[in-house]
Amino acid sequence: MLKTTASFWEVLSRGIKKVPTLQGQVVANLFFEPSTRTRSSFEIAAKRLSADILNFSSATSSMTKGETILDTAKAYVAMGTDIMVIRHRQAGIPQVIAQEMDNLGIKVSILNAGDGQHEHPSQALLDLFTICTLLDAKNPRLDLLKGKKIAIIGDILHSRVAHSNIWSLTATDVEVHLAAPPTLLPRFFNNYGQDRAGKIFLHWQLEPALEGADFVITLRLQKERMASYLLPSWREYHYLFGITKSKLKLCNPNVKVLHPGPVNRGIEISSDLIDDPEISLIQDQVTSGVAVRMALLYLIGSCKTIGEEKE
Amino acid sequence: MLKTTASFWEVLSRGIKKVPTLQGQVVANLFFEPSTRTRSSFEIAAKRLSADILNFSSATSSMTKGETILDTAKAYVAMGTDIMVIRHRQAGIPQVIAQEMDNLGIKVSILNAGDGQHEHPSQALLDLFTICTLLDAKNPRLDLLKGKKIAIIGDILHSRVAHSNIWSLTATDVEVHLAAPPTLLPRFFNNYGQDRAGKIFLHWQLEPALEGADFVITLRLQKERMASYLLPSWREYHYLFGITKSKLKLCNPNVKVLHPGPVNRGIEISSDLIDDPEISLIQDQVTSGVAVRMALLYLIGSCKTIGEEKE
Amino acid sequence: MLKTTASFWEVLSRGIKKVPTLQGQVVANLFFEPSTRTRSSFEIAAKRLSADILNFSSATSSMTKGETILDTAKAYVAMGTDIMVIRHRQAGIPQVIAQEMDNLGIKVSILNAGDGQHEHPSQALLDLFTICTLLDAKNPRLDLLKGKKIAIIGDILHSRVAHSNIWSLTATDVEVHLAAPPTLLPRFFNNYGQDRAGKIFLHWQLEPALEGADFVITLRLQKERMASYLLPSWREYHYLFGITKSKLKLCNPNVKVLHPGPVNRGIEISSDLIDDPEISLIQDQVTSGVAVRMALLYLIGSCKTIGEEKE
Repeated sequence: MLKTTASFWEVLSRGIKKVPTLQGQVVANLFFEPSTRTRSSFEIAAKRLSADILNFSSATSSMTKGETILDTAKAYVAMGTDIMVIRHRQAGIPQVIAQEMDNLGIKVSILNAGDGQHEHPSQALLDLFTICTLLDAKNPRLDLLKGKKIAIIGDILHSRVAHSNIWSLTATDVEVHLAAPPTLLPRFFNNYGQDRAGKIFLHWQLEPALEGADFVITLRLQKERMASYLLPSWREYHYLFGITKSKLKLCNPNVKVLHPGPVNRGIEISSDLIDDPEISLIQDQVTSGVAVRMALLYLIGSCKTIGEEKE
Repeated sequence: MLKTTASFWEVLSRGIKKVPTLQGQVVANLFFEPSTRTRSSFEIAAKRLSADILNFSSATSSMTKGETILDTAKAYVAMGTDIMVIRHRQAGIPQVIAQEMDNLGIKVSILNAGDGQHEHPSQALLDLFTICTLLDAKNPRLDLLKGKKIAIIGDILHSRVAHSNIWSLTATDVEVHLAAPPTLLPRFFNNYGQDRAGKIFLHWQLEPALEGADFVITLRLQKERMASYLLPSWREYHYLFGITKSKLKLCNPNVKVLHPGPVNRGIEISSDLIDDPEISLIQDQVTSGVAVRMALLYLIGSCKTIGEEKE
Repeated sequence: MLKTTASFWEVLSRGIKKVPTLQGQVVANLFFEPSTRTRSSFEIAAKRLSADILNFSSATSSMTKGETILDTAKAYVAMGTDIMVIRHRQAGIPQVIAQEMDNLGIKVSILNAGDGQHEHPSQALLDLFTICTLLDAKNPRLDLLKGKKIAIIGDILHSRVAHSNIWSLTATDVEVHLAAPPTLLPRFFNNYGQDRAGKIFLHWQLEPALEGADFVITLRLQKERMASYLLPSWREYHYLFGITKSKLKLCNPNVKVLHPGPVNRGIEISSDLIDDPEISLIQDQVTSGVAVRMALLYLIGSCKTIGEEKE
């Protein structure tokens, strides 16, 4: 998968960035939740592959007339959609749709673009690709991560990005250190490391996670957590868990910082770090995102899949 | 018209589903009402024909600044639109726009995608195509319906789908049986059969309409009818007029059920019927819809027309 | 610039209106304000040049999660956007974004599609092109305006269209006469003529501005001006400043009327004038708009620019 992404990454660095790979195929973006990056990223990836895009917006659709999500999805398939990219605030929706298509014998591919607090596979894949490409641009591969220490800081409990990253990073012999206030990092996250090649460590303080870290993935703090009494204030969160240049001194001197976006400047990460080209990989992540999604669309094509494909 | 649709239907079953027929032409989707099927169907039809699409959304347009519908339409024409597909909750809007373009000597094609409670021509055409293709896939033609009995069940009074279907189906020697509660099926519908080849029958009970029927078209019940005192409750509606497997026993043993979508499962039709591949043509309708709209866009091209073309 | 537009105008009059000039390039339409003409005009211009379009809608974007405008813009650049077309109700936004891209060494082109009450360069360019093409269709050039008298009538103070037009028209030896109620035309507008080839005249009555005018540009009166006590009523505005056939008798017999759209029929201009093909250039403006924007997109391509380019 990383190899395919690398070849599409190479396409994107050419003059003419378009290839006719998915000519005549239809990709439907069924986004039931707001998104800038993921939606546009899939859209531009599909267009680079010469596919046709259908954008769905629930506010101007027949869902206002009471149509179910499954019937909406089936209508898109009947119209000729080959690949459906689905984002929904309810976990499990892409899987439910995929199973229903299975039951009905309908041939369509489903890509999970983020389902509730469950998973966000394409984000984890692009994070992986960004990291591996940094370590070896010509031959990005999973085993480059062997022996590395990667910290994930933030609202782990509610973050589908964190869940997918934990899964993908522990596919090889890596130390994944999670750090968050106790309300956002319950003990059961220890179990995520079982039967995986990598190891997971939980911390309720920032510093142990950062010590010697090679990569730091910060997550967006949703401001509504304060309203639900999970955190006292964003200021206290920033004081204890915000990533700043001084705190990064604990890490490996060549440490890099990632963030899935969108960023709350000054909350989970200080504003100067976000734009620091020596440390931040945030813009690279967005660029990788298009290459990764081109690879996903290409590999999945017209085979049906539940939503995750990492290897 | 059916022959053209059949040839486009054949295009859609190929590997590469795209043809360069409308290359360089611009299709503007002016949808002032919510829609999933019709809007996306026209969009994918236009894209299969390699046309460029402009999607109009009234909420983010200059209509918020007070621009009239006619001026909005003229702006799109001046930008180079060749075909305008219009849906509006006010009946007659496509015709008004077409007449104004006539008066001004402007050359543009108008397709009615549903105007208020008046007509929905492309839906009726795709229903016709779905039925005729079932009867003879290689040579779908209108006279296949001769002698057939077709029931239309539901909110006939308010349904533009019903009005268009009544018109198209009575173009040949067919029995069209309408059934609905008296509040939704006034007597004047008898007049719709005058000077037409087909015959219209009104029923205020479901069973006489279903007896011996070859095809049953169910319409979506708008739940707000209860609020306007036209129906006591949806439960009573389902009991008296809902289509279920047991009620279908009155029909021809090979009866098929159609529904324009979106479906209210369990209200106008029972949930199991909708997905039954032996009985339901609902998914076929959606697929036909793309072929029919490709044919409409192709045939209409740059000739101006009021909105209906059935022969 | 006018020559490039003229060549694209010629492309639009051919049978096949599409050219592969920007094949593989991505144009992102970042419209934070409502628009019909400008947004669709840029979209169709980009599609005629075979570019791929990304449409941004703030309501369904990550800006709902608190993402800043700059970070949104940077995300689009990282996704591979070559040209960003920006409209925002806050003046200066396109320039701020362009400067930030400069600071970060990012290579992307910015086109200002209207920023607050500041400027609307593509509108002024298309007005210029419409006028010059009328004077000499085969060779539209700026010096055709020498010695002409052009009136701009309306809410000059708040109109970005007026500001851009004043700048572009005074690039040659032209008399630009501004007329509006005193509340909408403060004295400092006299300064706009300094160091320019053209001359500016202010009038607080309509008639002196219209006397001998060759072209009259009317601006949309925003009805909310009444609410802010800048005008007594729209009826009084129409009586004193509205353009009607009888008032046009003061002008040059061949006078033409322009309006950037959308028009408030009966307020700034009488309804019959808008559709009069002998006098109104309003539809021509919209058509020119596509050609002008094709030229802008082509000329700007992948060079970075602040937003204005007139010569």
